[in-house]
Amino acid sequence: MPHDPIALASQLIACDSITPARGAVFDALEEMLVPLGFAVERFVAGEAPDGPVENLLAVRGAGGRHFAFAGHLDVVPPGDGWASDPFAPTLRGGLLHGRGAVDMKGAIAAFVAALAGLEQVDGTISLIITGDEEGPAIHGTRALIARMAERGLHPDLCLIGEPTSVARLGDMVKIGRRGSVNMWISVPGVQGHVAYPHLADNPIPKLVRILAAIEAIHLDDGTDWFQPSNIEVTDLTVGNPATNVIPAAAHARLSIRFNALHRGEDLVARIRAVLAAEAPDATLKAQVSGEAFLSQPGPLSDLVGNAIEARLGIRPDLSTTGGTSDARFLSALCPVIEFGLPNATMHKLDEAAAVEDLQMLTLIYRDIVAQALR
Amino acid sequence: MPHDPIALASQLIACDSITPARGAVFDALEEMLVPLGFAVERFVAGEAPDGPVENLLAVRGAGGRHFAFAGHLDVVPPGDGWASDPFAPTLRGGLLHGRGAVDMKGAIAAFVAALAGLEQVDGTISLIITGDEEGPAIHGTRALIARMAERGLHPDLCLIGEPTSVARLGDMVKIGRRGSVNMWISVPGVQGHVAYPHLADNPIPKLVRILAAIEAIHLDDGTDWFQPSNIEVTDLTVGNPATNVIPAAAHARLSIRFNALHRGEDLVARIRAVLAAEAPDATLKAQVSGEAFLSQPGPLSDLVGNAIEARLGIRPDLSTTGGTSDARFLSALCPVIEFGLPNATMHKLDEAAAVEDLQMLTLIYRDIVAQALR
Ligand SMILES: [Zn+2]
Ligand SMILES: [Zn+2]
Repeated sequence: MPHDPIALASQLIACDSITPARGAVFDALEEMLVPLGFAVERFVAGEAPDGPVENLLAVRGAGGRHFAFAGHLDVVPPGDGWASDPFAPTLRGGLLHGRGAVDMKGAIAAFVAALAGLEQVDGTISLIITGDEEGPAIHGTRALIARMAERGLHPDLCLIGEPTSVARLGDMVKIGRRGSVNMWISVPGVQGHVAYPHLADNPIPKLVRILAAIEAIHLDDGTDWFQPSNIEVTDLTVGNPATNVIPAAAHARLSIRFNALHRGEDLVARIRAVLAAEAPDATLKAQVSGEAFLSQPGPLSDLVGNAIEARLGIRPDLSTTGGTSDARFLSALCPVIEFGLPNATMHKLDEAAAVEDLQMLTLIYRDIVAQALR
Repeated sequence: MPHDPIALASQLIACDSITPARGAVFDALEEMLVPLGFAVERFVAGEAPDGPVENLLAVRGAGGRHFAFAGHLDVVPPGDGWASDPFAPTLRGGLLHGRGAVDMKGAIAAFVAALAGLEQVDGTISLIITGDEEGPAIHGTRALIARMAERGLHPDLCLIGEPTSVARLGDMVKIGRRGSVNMWISVPGVQGHVAYPHLADNPIPKLVRILAAIEAIHLDDGTDWFQPSNIEVTDLTVGNPATNVIPAAAHARLSIRFNALHRGEDLVARIRAVLAAEAPDATLKAQVSGEAFLSQPGPLSDLVGNAIEARLGIRPDLSTTGGTSDARFLSALCPVIEFGLPNATMHKLDEAAAVEDLQMLTLIYRDIVAQALR
């Protein structure tokens, strides 16, 4: 059976593709897609340190409803201690072992297998596949989105094959993700001896006031679809080895995970206001990693939920939990939903996908595409 | 002139005696004291890492009033960049250059020179000289005090030759010192991903609450003789390199300099109470480096002040500022006062004492001893 998802996943896993991925693993995917009638375009984007990154855009059909599947061929480093070679796919106990089996070569394989058995009467199907989702993600999906705009490709909906299931296949899909912003606060002071505090200016009390004011901020209570936004102070740094010295500066780092009630820049402005009030000479550096997004529950989530229920008899939770994914970029194109394998072993030693799950995921993906193009 | 303070100071400076000092510099001092009628006892105390340390106890006379002079023969490392060899005493521009000229071989030389010209009818004079005041000070003056107790030596008053003068000789003496205690606070937490705060327990907000409560503590407004006690947070440490990780622990270090209204252990108990209230699982380590002490202004400070005024026409400020000194230990014996050379160059490159100051200090020390034994 040429389009067995186990065989396809094994071919992809066999290509070592630690992030950022290039070359062989893309060759393997291209060789699967071309016989299925896809026009495959590959390009390399970016330069060191965040690139170069390989990306692949595959399109079959034209006009009509446009269904996009998005994913990544790069994997996180396997680490030491695997029971079998992480890049030698191994079937053991009903599980396919290998780095990327779950996140997310298995899902890409299932989608390709689904397409193989799909009668596409009309409409457009595209695959948006990057080699850098696990890394900086600067030249990956964002470059693919730009390329699609150049090609006039505008999907109506997008399914991302990230491993969203938790205890069993189909128990959870993601309809949104929280946004993320990191901030670095620096408070200057004047170094001096603790015995002569009037000759020094200790920056730490100012930093404590800033952090106490930040801790007092209540961002929200969550929404129907989001958990409450949270502000975490993740690091404090002074680096003063001398017990009798008042230090010259104090630093803190924040991470805010925020729901769709907020925008990253507004949160940065809010923290800036705290600094201005508590310690005007303090400085702030901020980096918004991604805005929050929500694909409001509706036709797309119904479509996916119905397909899962028809095959598995369970209705997935519509979740917005977890870290960021490339859905933060793709949500600018069209409604986005994430659905894939159980994620218990992702990024871990002995990552493995159940053979049964891969076969079932293939059937569900096929049902989703068929329904979406109708 | 065999008892010229310049010659004596030069002999002591010529012995390299970087802390902890042993050997030659003590030989030199012993050779000065024996001809003056002193019974000299030397002993080595302690083991690595805080020892061994050489100490010298010299006594002349018995019974009657007992006047003690205390000091140290060790010096801090000279560092690079001296205009002349720091251990080759050099007269230049009316100044005697060399490491220890000010802190405090110059004062010891002045005291020896003072004794040489002193008619001691009755009473007891002792010299309490350690080789470790600039280092850990564990086996120095404390061991000397123990040895004095064994010998039944109980001074009535003690003059310490630390360089207390500021702009000119005699403008300041010290009648007390603040105490010092360092504390290390550790707050445990549960490490986790910032996206899943409910699975983690961030220790930083707890540490911030603790530090805010500590900053709110008002110890005192100072006293007639002391500046206000101050609490300084001198370091913050988390050491978390990952922007998306809630750390497992957070740490802070405090230094409290306190006046005679407080005792070190009481302050430790107070900080412990803050921890118990704000974060009961936080832990505290504390080290009291020295208690505050005050030799209430009275006969001793009058005696020293009068001697200075008679020779120099100025009345010294009675101060309690600055870091700790061995006076913290000696104050357990008897009233203590510190008076010595101008301290502008102590612990610095090109440390130097004015020839005129050394000669004048000799005269004043002689007047003080003569008056004290009367
Ligand atoms: Zn992934
Ligand atoms: Zn000294």
